[in-house]
Amino acid sequence: MTTRALAEWLVGQRFEDIPQDVRHEALRSLVNIVGCAIGGSTHPAMDITVRALGQFSGPATAQPLARRERVDPLFASLLNGISSHVYDYDDTTPGNYSHPSSPVASALFAYASANPVSGRDFVHAFILGFEAESRIGNAVYPAHYDAGWHITGTAGVFGAATAIGKLVGLSTQQMVWAIGLAATQAAGLREMFGSMGKAFHPGRSAQSGYAAALLAREGFTAGERSLEGPRGFAAVQASAYDLSKITNRLGEDWDLRVNTYKPFPCGIVNHPTIDGCIQLHDEHHVAPDQIAAVRLRVAPLVMDLCNQTNITKGLQGKFSVYHGAAVGLVRGKAGIQEYTDEAVNEPAIKRVREHATATGDPAVTEDQAYIEVELADGRKLTKFIEASLGNLKRPLSDAQLDTKFRDQGVLALSSAEVDRVLALCWRIHELADAGEVVRASSPA
Amino acid sequence: MTTRALAEWLVGQRFEDIPQDVRHEALRSLVNIVGCAIGGSTHPAMDITVRALGQFSGPATAQPLARRERVDPLFASLLNGISSHVYDYDDTTPGNYSHPSSPVASALFAYASANPVSGRDFVHAFILGFEAESRIGNAVYPAHYDAGWHITGTAGVFGAATAIGKLVGLSTQQMVWAIGLAATQAAGLREMFGSMGKAFHPGRSAQSGYAAALLAREGFTAGERSLEGPRGFAAVQASAYDLSKITNRLGEDWDLRVNTYKPFPCGIVNHPTIDGCIQLHDEHHVAPDQIAAVRLRVAPLVMDLCNQTNITKGLQGKFSVYHGAAVGLVRGKAGIQEYTDEAVNEPAIKRVREHATATGDPAVTEDQAYIEVELADGRKLTKFIEASLGNLKRPLSDAQLDTKFRDQGVLALSSAEVDRVLALCWRIHELADAGEVVRASSPA
Repeated sequence: MTTRALAEWLVGQRFEDIPQDVRHEALRSLVNIVGCAIGGSTHPAMDITVRALGQFSGPATAQPLARRERVDPLFASLLNGISSHVYDYDDTTPGNYSHPSSPVASALFAYASANPVSGRDFVHAFILGFEAESRIGNAVYPAHYDAGWHITGTAGVFGAATAIGKLVGLSTQQMVWAIGLAATQAAGLREMFGSMGKAFHPGRSAQSGYAAALLAREGFTAGERSLEGPRGFAAVQASAYDLSKITNRLGEDWDLRVNTYKPFPCGIVNHPTIDGCIQLHDEHHVAPDQIAAVRLRVAPLVMDLCNQTNITKGLQGKFSVYHGAAVGLVRGKAGIQEYTDEAVNEPAIKRVREHATATGDPAVTEDQAYIEVELADGRKLTKFIEASLGNLKRPLSDAQLDTKFRDQGVLALSSAEVDRVLALCWRIHELADAGEVVRASSPA
Repeated sequence: MTTRALAEWLVGQRFEDIPQDVRHEALRSLVNIVGCAIGGSTHPAMDITVRALGQFSGPATAQPLARRERVDPLFASLLNGISSHVYDYDDTTPGNYSHPSSPVASALFAYASANPVSGRDFVHAFILGFEAESRIGNAVYPAHYDAGWHITGTAGVFGAATAIGKLVGLSTQQMVWAIGLAATQAAGLREMFGSMGKAFHPGRSAQSGYAAALLAREGFTAGERSLEGPRGFAAVQASAYDLSKITNRLGEDWDLRVNTYKPFPCGIVNHPTIDGCIQLHDEHHVAPDQIAAVRLRVAPLVMDLCNQTNITKGLQGKFSVYHGAAVGLVRGKAGIQEYTDEAVNEPAIKRVREHATATGDPAVTEDQAYIEVELADGRKLTKFIEASLGNLKRPLSDAQLDTKFRDQGVLALSSAEVDRVLALCWRIHELADAGEVVRASSPA
């Protein structure tokens, strides 16, 4: 009875029993996701969503992160999920390639902006929602992801449902139903990659999971074995799965310990290539027009996920390892400004991108890349990245997370506002009201 | 380019080119689904949903069928979907076992209750949404359904998105995105069968599809090949599929022609058994306590879908061919009152149910059943049903649909109100404002 065992653990788990390092990693994840939400809050997808669906918002008790609108908490969940994922800059658990914080935190910040909730309860619910979501993702990975599911959406709805369920104090039976109503809303196709549809996934997951928890609280019933049943989530959405990954060592292993934060706003499998190309840029200062060819040898998954060529849109650039190589070599950086439509169409970047080729090599891990740059004069520059910046072996420091937060924050807020939100995020567990973070993120 | 071809056809299709018999079948489907929605409007799942989520309703421009609440159109879509499916009494396309009208009509009636729309445009959008949904379901059936997907939910979201998309006048590009945003929300697990979660599926599909159309209209982008792409709906959600079923003979074949209406409020595969047991009841008037054994020989799918034993809830009875046999033999009918918790626990019905056994036989079609009833005195009564009432060979007449409508209608409305709504449904295509049907369904 996987579903019931998970529900029982979630309902009974106490904050005091969560190790200190896990609590600190939760703060790091929250700092990172709030920064991403602020950075993404001015993306066109946000105004589009407000224009399309704002007319259906209920009483404006909530507010989305870094937006001026006042909306209902479910709609705020959707908006938070879009803003925090739309630049593909949020966190990743490399064990299952999901972006786990967005669905959970998006629902929780929406809730906290409309209801009093202590920082401690907020962080507790975040840790548990993250854990449930990540374990469910682990159970179905890789078959689920390989089939074409965007695991951030499919696993995310469980994270939001269980986090909100914990906050509102569901009983075990209600938590079983909340998990069931999450399972039966689990959706999101990788065919959306390169469109706004990708960022819709964590948003919709946050919103759907939030609704699942409230429906369950009122007695809306669901299948009791939604994870393990013969027509449950695992069996239907994965050709192979291991349910023991959901319940083994619950309360001992914590997936927050294997969370990672991106230094670059694109698919994580591109990061070793970008990292190496930036290093080559910094070491050799090659003029772009001197680059005759770029040859990449990368993990096979890179070819699977990020093989887009002939691109014209910033969003497509995130799924092009060639674009990542090009901006690294031409600009020596790969921030949000390197993934705009303008950057993708800049002649120097375009030329280098179109001279880049890649081969997938099973001997290359997903943290590694071999780069060879051939110059017009015949010289060859090479770089091997053993472990990419931002991965578990080279994690971003707290200070690097601050820098990333500020870089994104100034897209929507003044520097002073950014610093104030950042400081609140680092001590959210001590706040009497976690909603203070959301209110501080509102543009003046 | 399946997605674009479908979108182009939907955008360009004209009402004048729809054959008369298809238009009439649309009216029959609308009569049937409105009756179901009225009948289900007082089900406890409805009040639960309002208690849980009513607080998030936006401005009350819309109204759900047969309810007193005034809510926003997206929430009305959800409520209509639940009420019209919660008694498992809605229509079925036997070619793919989906219940096609609920997701489409639920969104359309919500829209029409809040926006002026002519009856002609309403019926047109219904026919096209139904067709898109049914063809997409056909393309992935049976692998999709066999895997555990509730096709009413997964295909339904396409129906709602395309129907609303047609009404709001999407361009082809916008319709492509609407289909994409539908695809990436397609969800619903058969593990929910026997719980309220099942009726949640068409409701959520209606709501999600409605939102998809409006997002697409404002420019929210999605994958362009959401049906046929390598990580699109068909490839991800079915191990085998035939995309040509989506586009072949568009505008020539119409799936409304193969729609069927249930005489009994439970899974359609139970119907031949129930039909036969009612006939045995009417012919032999056997006292329940004289029934020693009931032996059923049925299509294998019956064992797959409706093999529930040891049941205690009305909802579970819908998925128990044994319960269907028992109420047919004991009461000589199988209406909504035979699927209550009380009926399931009635000693005489329970006893007969527990003396019933079934075997799946590939030689028996899904429209057929062999029934043998052994009596206490050793006599054996037998019945073979060649084609069950309500299937394509023995469709309910318009008059039988009227009777079914009235039987359900009086659960929520006065007889006079029921007759008024029924009359409006039969001439909805002539109404200046289709919302009149919804307003007439509001309880006094």
